[in-house]
Amino acid sequence: MASPQTGSLVLTGTVQADARAPGGHELHVNQLEVFHLVQEEFPIQSKEHGTGFLMEHRHLWIRSPRQQAILRIRHEIIRACRTFFDDRGFLLVDTPIFTPNACEGTTTLFETDYFGEKAYLTQSGQLYNEATAAAFGKVYCFGPTFRAEKSKTRRHLMEFWMVEPEVAFAELADVMTLAEEFLTSIVAHVLKRRREELKVLDRDMKKLEAIVPPFPRITYAEAVERLQKKGNPIQPGDDFGGDEETILSNEFDRPAIIHRYPTALKAFYMQNDPENPDLALCMDVLAPEGYGEIIGGGQRIHERDKLLTRLKAHRLPEDAFRWYLDLRTFGSVPHAGFGMGIERAVAWICGLEHVRETIPFPRMLYKIYP
Amino acid sequence: MASPQTGSLVLTGTVQADARAPGGHELHVNQLEVFHLVQEEFPIQSKEHGTGFLMEHRHLWIRSPRQQAILRIRHEIIRACRTFFDDRGFLLVDTPIFTPNACEGTTTLFETDYFGEKAYLTQSGQLYNEATAAAFGKVYCFGPTFRAEKSKTRRHLMEFWMVEPEVAFAELADVMTLAEEFLTSIVAHVLKRRREELKVLDRDMKKLEAIVPPFPRITYAEAVERLQKKGNPIQPGDDFGGDEETILSNEFDRPAIIHRYPTALKAFYMQNDPENPDLALCMDVLAPEGYGEIIGGGQRIHERDKLLTRLKAHRLPEDAFRWYLDLRTFGSVPHAGFGMGIERAVAWICGLEHVRETIPFPRMLYKIYP
Repeated sequence: MASPQTGSLVLTGTVQADARAPGGHELHVNQLEVFHLVQEEFPIQSKEHGTGFLMEHRHLWIRSPRQQAILRIRHEIIRACRTFFDDRGFLLVDTPIFTPNACEGTTTLFETDYFGEKAYLTQSGQLYNEATAAAFGKVYCFGPTFRAEKSKTRRHLMEFWMVEPEVAFAELADVMTLAEEFLTSIVAHVLKRRREELKVLDRDMKKLEAIVPPFPRITYAEAVERLQKKGNPIQPGDDFGGDEETILSNEFDRPAIIHRYPTALKAFYMQNDPENPDLALCMDVLAPEGYGEIIGGGQRIHERDKLLTRLKAHRLPEDAFRWYLDLRTFGSVPHAGFGMGIERAVAWICGLEHVRETIPFPRMLYKIYP
Repeated sequence: MASPQTGSLVLTGTVQADARAPGGHELHVNQLEVFHLVQEEFPIQSKEHGTGFLMEHRHLWIRSPRQQAILRIRHEIIRACRTFFDDRGFLLVDTPIFTPNACEGTTTLFETDYFGEKAYLTQSGQLYNEATAAAFGKVYCFGPTFRAEKSKTRRHLMEFWMVEPEVAFAELADVMTLAEEFLTSIVAHVLKRRREELKVLDRDMKKLEAIVPPFPRITYAEAVERLQKKGNPIQPGDDFGGDEETILSNEFDRPAIIHRYPTALKAFYMQNDPENPDLALCMDVLAPEGYGEIIGGGQRIHERDKLLTRLKAHRLPEDAFRWYLDLRTFGSVPHAGFGMGIERAVAWICGLEHVRETIPFPRMLYKIYP
């Protein structure tokens, strides 16, 4: 028999406090029962492995201390999100995964055959959140979302989890404050409960302790100026890409709220600024330390006529949005919300280079095993 | 202007306790601001509407008191599930929605193109849960699952949420007890926090107060005998359908745990009973009052050779299960778990006739709007 590298066994004995022990306790063993003596060498050794190899062995890689620390922090972040909204009287209202119409083009949507009809996997619960916020006032949804983008960056996964609150009677300023309180609460929660795991990751906790209000709030126009001063070639009206986000997100020691992007860059449902209709009442929140966008949101159009005009301008099918227009026909109110991508938040809080380690079984470009 | 049926407005005033008021309080209004006076008749009137009509107007139907009560109880049930596992040291480990291989035939799977490969939407997180339980000991996953069954019964949805715990070193008896404690805890939680909503639904609370341990535990063989005594034509070896579940579930005043079904009726990974290898160490939990199966689970095969034999007998591709076999190669231990369908649990606890009202936007056969 080869000498076993690993195994599974049951130890019975007495646990005693011992300051010299790494965990503070020693187990004095009386009995040992072997369940399984391993005959083969464990594929993951202490030597360096390439990411490709580790991803092929993700089911075993999650047994290592670093991956365990990340997944424990992930759970804590998810719990902190839910607790934040539950404690504030938000109702969890799950939005559907299968959606009937492709709101904004099908190029980044996963499609399936739904008994002869085409259905698409959701990219966001927002439109449905607007219906439930109109019914319940304050709601959130929390589930997997899907983007079929051919992106291979450190910030992209094909399947990722999003938490999205939506609030009736709220305006842009309200959700900026909500996002600020939300992120502050999550970081505080992790610092309180997962200090050991942050140590395993060598996370600089001072940087997390700095995450307190007020967060800087800068307009899109100010952000463009800041980028240009750093030598970035961006022009007013251009959207931010990964590079721009990284630069901006390195400027501050806490999340930065960038608001009032040009309407032309944003989705059809975005409310515009009464003081300058070319600007949308929207925001992105960029995590510090170069992590970039983790939250996107804003105020939605609540006037039926304005929405109808916008649908036409975007050449969207009115019939598919019949129910969405109904929300503006029967007791419409201003409302706003946002979405946070869990994996990006985990990457930032854990201080990781890539989102692929933030989810148990990452789904990436051409990568779906195990 | 037509006389408005509904609208949205902001009332400002003083709230005063008043025993004569339905909610126990009166609002003395000082100011009234109208946001939106509705010009059209609200589609849902107090008269009876057909389910088809209501489902087409689901985005407005959720504004009615009964639907609101159901969705509030749904949130409470979900919260109770998470609290139960979190408090017991289970780690939430999200399992993937996209899965690469069709474990047990593709007839009930939704398929999508994953960058040139076929991917399927998950029917259960169990196999992945086994990997994470081997890493963390006690885990649960909680997310949407999908079945493309052409079923149009009161118990089926195409898209539904499942919570699935998995425990290393656990055997069938352990997860029977876990399921019993779990259901007891959920019902107690709802009774404590959502009494008002249960009243709106005219739910008989006595029936819920009876949900306390011990739950009856009967073998498959005993269940068949009971069915035959009721005149049901079932023969030993037959699976239970909706009718059989309804009969059995009406026999008891609390959930009944049916265990040890014939191995031939169950999935390839089910451990068999050492005392009778033709029986699987599995269980279904049937909710009372005719609601039928809400939980299914059991003990999994942890021996590599046995699993390999079973894969071959089921003509399953060994290569696709390479990672799953690895779990039996490197430190395998007995383990067990179960899954509970949220919508069926909500239907039972709320006392509803059909699962379609238990989820904000139900996805049913040929039914994907709104």
